[in-house]
Amino acid sequence: MKNTYSPNEFIIKELGTRRVNSPIRLSEVDGDGIYNYLESDERILYDPNLKNLKTLQEQGIEPISFEKTGPYEKIFFDPSKTKVGIVTCGGLCPGLNNVIRGLVMELFYRYNVNRVIGFKYGYEGFVSEFGHSYVELTPQNIENIHTMGGTFLGSSRGKQDVETVVDTLDILNINVLFTIGGDGTLRGAHGIVEEIEKRGLKISVIGIPKTIDNDINFIDRSFGFETAVSIASEVIKNAHNEAKGAHNGIAIVKLMGRQSGFIAATAALATQEANFVLVPETVFSLEGEKSFIEVLKKRTVDKSHSLVIVGEGAGQYLFEDQEFDTDASGNLKFKDIGIYLKNKIAEGFKKDSIAHTIKYIDPSYIIRSAPANASDSRFCIQLAQQAVHAAMAGKTDAVVGYWNQNFTLLPIPVTVKERKQIDLEGELWWSVLETTGQPTSMK
Amino acid sequence: MKNTYSPNEFIIKELGTRRVNSPIRLSEVDGDGIYNYLESDERILYDPNLKNLKTLQEQGIEPISFEKTGPYEKIFFDPSKTKVGIVTCGGLCPGLNNVIRGLVMELFYRYNVNRVIGFKYGYEGFVSEFGHSYVELTPQNIENIHTMGGTFLGSSRGKQDVETVVDTLDILNINVLFTIGGDGTLRGAHGIVEEIEKRGLKISVIGIPKTIDNDINFIDRSFGFETAVSIASEVIKNAHNEAKGAHNGIAIVKLMGRQSGFIAATAALATQEANFVLVPETVFSLEGEKSFIEVLKKRTVDKSHSLVIVGEGAGQYLFEDQEFDTDASGNLKFKDIGIYLKNKIAEGFKKDSIAHTIKYIDPSYIIRSAPANASDSRFCIQLAQQAVHAAMAGKTDAVVGYWNQNFTLLPIPVTVKERKQIDLEGELWWSVLETTGQPTSMK
Amino acid sequence: MKNTYSPNEFIIKELGTRRVNSPIRLSEVDGDGIYNYLESDERILYDPNLKNLKTLQEQGIEPISFEKTGPYEKIFFDPSKTKVGIVTCGGLCPGLNNVIRGLVMELFYRYNVNRVIGFKYGYEGFVSEFGHSYVELTPQNIENIHTMGGTFLGSSRGKQDVETVVDTLDILNINVLFTIGGDGTLRGAHGIVEEIEKRGLKISVIGIPKTIDNDINFIDRSFGFETAVSIASEVIKNAHNEAKGAHNGIAIVKLMGRQSGFIAATAALATQEANFVLVPETVFSLEGEKSFIEVLKKRTVDKSHSLVIVGEGAGQYLFEDQEFDTDASGNLKFKDIGIYLKNKIAEGFKKDSIAHTIKYIDPSYIIRSAPANASDSRFCIQLAQQAVHAAMAGKTDAVVGYWNQNFTLLPIPVTVKERKQIDLEGELWWSVLETTGQPTSMK
Amino acid sequence: MKNTYSPNEFIIKELGTRRVNSPIRLSEVDGDGIYNYLESDERILYDPNLKNLKTLQEQGIEPISFEKTGPYEKIFFDPSKTKVGIVTCGGLCPGLNNVIRGLVMELFYRYNVNRVIGFKYGYEGFVSEFGHSYVELTPQNIENIHTMGGTFLGSSRGKQDVETVVDTLDILNINVLFTIGGDGTLRGAHGIVEEIEKRGLKISVIGIPKTIDNDINFIDRSFGFETAVSIASEVIKNAHNEAKGAHNGIAIVKLMGRQSGFIAATAALATQEANFVLVPETVFSLEGEKSFIEVLKKRTVDKSHSLVIVGEGAGQYLFEDQEFDTDASGNLKFKDIGIYLKNKIAEGFKKDSIAHTIKYIDPSYIIRSAPANASDSRFCIQLAQQAVHAAMAGKTDAVVGYWNQNFTLLPIPVTVKERKQIDLEGELWWSVLETTGQPTSMK
Repeated sequence: MKNTYSPNEFIIKELGTRRVNSPIRLSEVDGDGIYNYLESDERILYDPNLKNLKTLQEQGIEPISFEKTGPYEKIFFDPSKTKVGIVTCGGLCPGLNNVIRGLVMELFYRYNVNRVIGFKYGYEGFVSEFGHSYVELTPQNIENIHTMGGTFLGSSRGKQDVETVVDTLDILNINVLFTIGGDGTLRGAHGIVEEIEKRGLKISVIGIPKTIDNDINFIDRSFGFETAVSIASEVIKNAHNEAKGAHNGIAIVKLMGRQSGFIAATAALATQEANFVLVPETVFSLEGEKSFIEVLKKRTVDKSHSLVIVGEGAGQYLFEDQEFDTDASGNLKFKDIGIYLKNKIAEGFKKDSIAHTIKYIDPSYIIRSAPANASDSRFCIQLAQQAVHAAMAGKTDAVVGYWNQNFTLLPIPVTVKERKQIDLEGELWWSVLETTGQPTSMK
Repeated sequence: MKNTYSPNEFIIKELGTRRVNSPIRLSEVDGDGIYNYLESDERILYDPNLKNLKTLQEQGIEPISFEKTGPYEKIFFDPSKTKVGIVTCGGLCPGLNNVIRGLVMELFYRYNVNRVIGFKYGYEGFVSEFGHSYVELTPQNIENIHTMGGTFLGSSRGKQDVETVVDTLDILNINVLFTIGGDGTLRGAHGIVEEIEKRGLKISVIGIPKTIDNDINFIDRSFGFETAVSIASEVIKNAHNEAKGAHNGIAIVKLMGRQSGFIAATAALATQEANFVLVPETVFSLEGEKSFIEVLKKRTVDKSHSLVIVGEGAGQYLFEDQEFDTDASGNLKFKDIGIYLKNKIAEGFKKDSIAHTIKYIDPSYIIRSAPANASDSRFCIQLAQQAVHAAMAGKTDAVVGYWNQNFTLLPIPVTVKERKQIDLEGELWWSVLETTGQPTSMK
Repeated sequence: MKNTYSPNEFIIKELGTRRVNSPIRLSEVDGDGIYNYLESDERILYDPNLKNLKTLQEQGIEPISFEKTGPYEKIFFDPSKTKVGIVTCGGLCPGLNNVIRGLVMELFYRYNVNRVIGFKYGYEGFVSEFGHSYVELTPQNIENIHTMGGTFLGSSRGKQDVETVVDTLDILNINVLFTIGGDGTLRGAHGIVEEIEKRGLKISVIGIPKTIDNDINFIDRSFGFETAVSIASEVIKNAHNEAKGAHNGIAIVKLMGRQSGFIAATAALATQEANFVLVPETVFSLEGEKSFIEVLKKRTVDKSHSLVIVGEGAGQYLFEDQEFDTDASGNLKFKDIGIYLKNKIAEGFKKDSIAHTIKYIDPSYIIRSAPANASDSRFCIQLAQQAVHAAMAGKTDAVVGYWNQNFTLLPIPVTVKERKQIDLEGELWWSVLETTGQPTSMK
Repeated sequence: MKNTYSPNEFIIKELGTRRVNSPIRLSEVDGDGIYNYLESDERILYDPNLKNLKTLQEQGIEPISFEKTGPYEKIFFDPSKTKVGIVTCGGLCPGLNNVIRGLVMELFYRYNVNRVIGFKYGYEGFVSEFGHSYVELTPQNIENIHTMGGTFLGSSRGKQDVETVVDTLDILNINVLFTIGGDGTLRGAHGIVEEIEKRGLKISVIGIPKTIDNDINFIDRSFGFETAVSIASEVIKNAHNEAKGAHNGIAIVKLMGRQSGFIAATAALATQEANFVLVPETVFSLEGEKSFIEVLKKRTVDKSHSLVIVGEGAGQYLFEDQEFDTDASGNLKFKDIGIYLKNKIAEGFKKDSIAHTIKYIDPSYIIRSAPANASDSRFCIQLAQQAVHAAMAGKTDAVVGYWNQNFTLLPIPVTVKERKQIDLEGELWWSVLETTGQPTSMK
């Protein structure tokens, strides 16, 4: 449990106290066979461990908890007067179209909101200089998009001037903005919220967090992650065939994971075929008796082949040149650890005259652009429904999360403060070590 | 929250207090980069809702919680003297081979237990009359089974005489029995435990619950379910094509779900294409103004096609003949609601002279026999690892569960007391109603 | 070589000699790097066996050959004045949408024909009583249909009055009709041609033969077949798991194939897992020492499981009741040989007290409604392009075929005269016998 | 029709005239329901075009034809005294395991040959310095390999000393060697044949040609190609999503194809989504008004995205540095045209200040290592069966082919003389031009 957070950080902002009746007809009583409106003060515990809870309570410390989300009986926006904007930002992720479709369907059919605009190509879509027209979204024109990968709206990396964005929202009379994007996008969204507040506007900004790496704090699962693991697993199986297909064959698969290796670790568990998993959370060296390359040599010579999975953010400290460019989103541009390892392994094996072959596979674009699998498709719909409930109720500066089997709301600032990473002393990483047989440390 | 359960029902039985050191070398301190042994009194709250918790605490009621599982520093069985049996029972389910493989790998490579026996064809394998020889399981002969559907050990339905089973365990000097099976299998396992206790034997019986329907109480997720939803979703998409391919085309897809419609409901959400979902939890009628068939008529004529998903246990009360056979497992043999609906729909449409075509699809054997997808593959490994931890620690009469993001142990009796069903007043069902547009009630 | 056909039967009808320039700009010379127009008298030999050819030539017999198809320099219809109709008939088949899309794209972008009408729900679409409106087909509204199964236009079984159909063609000023359908549809198309000729109209009727069973004479490959085999193979693998999952487990997979067992035979070869393949071409008995059921008993008891593939048209002579209904298309409605076998096997095994379980799987709707795989997608495009070339050149009463690595044209009458069936003395069937190990005869 | 070949080049060598009865019991008469032995002088015409044939015959020129293969009544090798070797060489290709399994099954179960040896890691396996032990192949140990990608035997690139190879064959008393490999492997096999002849040994060498590129002359289809197109098509769909996901998004997919672009061209047809296909057969420039980059600019700006498929051997003449390394197989090591194009496109767009993003995808290892799809699985079995027939009959220096719907035998020398390439004046390429809309020439 990270004790750097206080319960107060998890309070969701609201636009105001104005309330109209929700157009969704639900129930307030149990036992009538009809779903109930969300009660106002439902919260989900961060840590369901009873022992930890009792320790906190004995110390008089309020446990961290997250606001539960769901349909509210009284909402902030009058559906007939509400206009909604949707934008997708950053790299592709399976499920983007499912979320867009889910938002539109929920807005039209449940809340009777029928003015929904899609901004094209990320935050660029708010800036007239780019010349991107917007798209009117209707149940008809998005009917089949959930079967396709990519994003119907297009995307772009990078932030745009916050004042310009809010100008556009204001001019277009947008009341609700859904931003579907990652870390940078959410920071951008928070900037938009601040500008909205500065101007005293009543615009709700709700994020649906998009991180194929599943690295957002306080969120158990982000959309696209399961699809990514699924496709990565197929690639790993094929890479295993490549490794075994040659004497002392080494296959290296680079998977997504800038600061967190969840895809690499989970796919390794799913396939049971990798011998080494290198993730951004671990530190390994390439030279010295216990180094990765020495361990790899031994394993390869013993078994005639090896399969290595490496997260894209792993081993960045290894590069001689420690200057990194930034991309349009302001993210550090990582150097290619896959190619680097390939070369270093070749050097290391050559030094000991170990004949070998290396195959390097980087499937990331294939994964990012794939359609959502069934599990993510279902999850995206539910995220979208919850996002609409939250927005219509006037919540703002918040993202939709999922924790302990409940959909939740989290303030944007708390989600972008730190990354969720693999706990190297936790169950997941230990399962990986058990499965691969790799040493705890390769320094 | 079901108040028919008391916290005491969730206490796990142990074989005794004898303790030897675990062969797994872990840590007892945080911060050293090594996974820690499980502390002895870790429990996971059933209900993470803070408001409910406070209400209970105000009333002085102990909340229900589940024992957390993990690797124990001190264990009951001495690995070098331990012999293990594994059996798979009941119908096929994606992931059976992954669980078998996970158990064997964990036993051999982590606990150094190298005598593992597979009983063939379910509980029949314990009864010499059937003449099924057993299989010595080794990391070599199960190396690739996780890529295949079905069960490496074969299976059978039905229980066998408990005394005979325990005789076999005793004669073969089995110390740990892993039973992978559903409801009936778990009841059988509990009977075995009782017989073991009667004889004063020290044999641990640990279940890995197998229910493709995901209908075991207090368990968030059971293996095979995600794979089932995934394949069912593909079938639904094809069925949708069949429905649209003919004027007033109606496609009926029957999915697994004897008492619980989770597969039907989840696949409907994942695909967004069904117009009606009928599950065992719902009551609908076929005649009368608001009946399913009348609603179906209207929808079909309006839109020229309809897609119906029906859980196999739905509408069993509709059959004129209310006598049901039982199968070898003692389960009621359900009558075929899919065929029944097909005929009743044809009758109903004919009465109103509505030209139509009906396509009926029952993909259940295709689903049950498929290999586990990546998500289930990973989950099965983790279930198997936890099951081995529990067994080696001398836990017994227990199953491995998963709840609020933690692996747990549950006493067998509490898991077979009632089925987990869709809450018709809950979020899942309401999402289904939103997605299909079907009325809340079709009675 | 079937000697019941004469070369004259393979002459393609033409609407007339009027000729305009094709809008497609090709070449007439080799070596300029540009595709050449089809020369007028290119024909493809039916039998490429040199020995057979020489025998015929020695006897002074003209060998059978098929007209090659391709782009013509001079065409019959003036694109700017041409209006085209498309109709899909009969059951679903993977690739229908690909063919529709291919036709529309070729017409619009190569021939500049921009009036294309889709008739809804098969031949019903020509009959005003059914009230189906037609669809204007444009590159925009069919852009993505090739990724989906089913048919964008809907379909229906059965023929409609030929005079009414031609009335509709005449009233709507249709110059070219593409009919995508099977045996019955092609007979219907021929009837339409006769009526057109009777009235002296200049309407070209070109068929794209749709038979998932790949059972059209003189055509090596029909679209949808490869996809069908591919999906059937997955089902067979799962069925194999079901068979092995129980002691003396028997899995029966019924596959499409009314008069021809190509899908069953080819999928058996592709999977290498079936022990018995029963097709419409074979005669087997269920009683007697050498009967299928006795052979099955032996095999099942020896190996503890069996996998049986049966074509839907197999063993129809076995039914006590030899009266068969006909469906709307006029096809005999086959009785369900799968269920029948299941029952007969159960009886047979019970008689000898052989404990066993039987799983019966009928995946046909799942297969028919699937999207085309890559191989069929490519093939459909090419069929569609050739169909457009033929139609624009004024060919009529013809279907597009594929033979000896060339696209061909065949007169409709010659293709519906007899079915292509598995030659029980041929290479394919013998490969099946080798793979399954089943006896040559089970009578 | 290439006139550089004479009919004599297509005569298959035989080891001698010794004849024993085949253990396969077939028939010599039609009509008895049993497959017939192959007659000795069956040949399949190369060109089935009747017009071309008549032209040749008028000129008194014997048309080119290929020996048909099949089961022979009299064979050369006595099965009980025959020992067989199998080797797989070169890069991976879907279907390698299916061919291995097919050979072993046919040898054991049809010909009663039960001494089959697998050489490990290609031709290295014949050279004791490498220390690779060989594998005894039995129906048991290869039972499930057809479901897996890669090669059960391992592979390597490059040739080994022919004398050493034949020494090994001689010492191990191998009578038949099956080599599964590409161009280089077949040249190697021919060298082995020559050495065998020099020594007067009676060893048959039969090749099963492995070229994922489908570029062997006189062979319509090689195994693995259909699987490759199928996986490439999925990648192309995802790449299309990447292209559309960004403003002026350009996706480049590099596909296999060293000297022939069949995979690129066929996958482009199958998906209908590429805007440019660049293959080794075409010449295009990167600068100048009509150059590829200028056409790409126009298309990208017009439509906001572009999808480019490039064969690996395309545009090699573009590189400033025209020195190419060779790999162990003696093949020229191509420079990476994908990366090169990516950079050149970026430069070209930057020059005109066109904002854009480029995604480069190279899926080749994922494709090569995948399991065979259903179509290739079936084809591999049949190739293997034919290869065994040929070898047992004492044919040598030959490969198994497929032409005009018949399995054939071709002398190795004639197959390695030239590559099969896309005819830029042929139907396939023209279909590609039609589908992509790219200009005929981009020079």
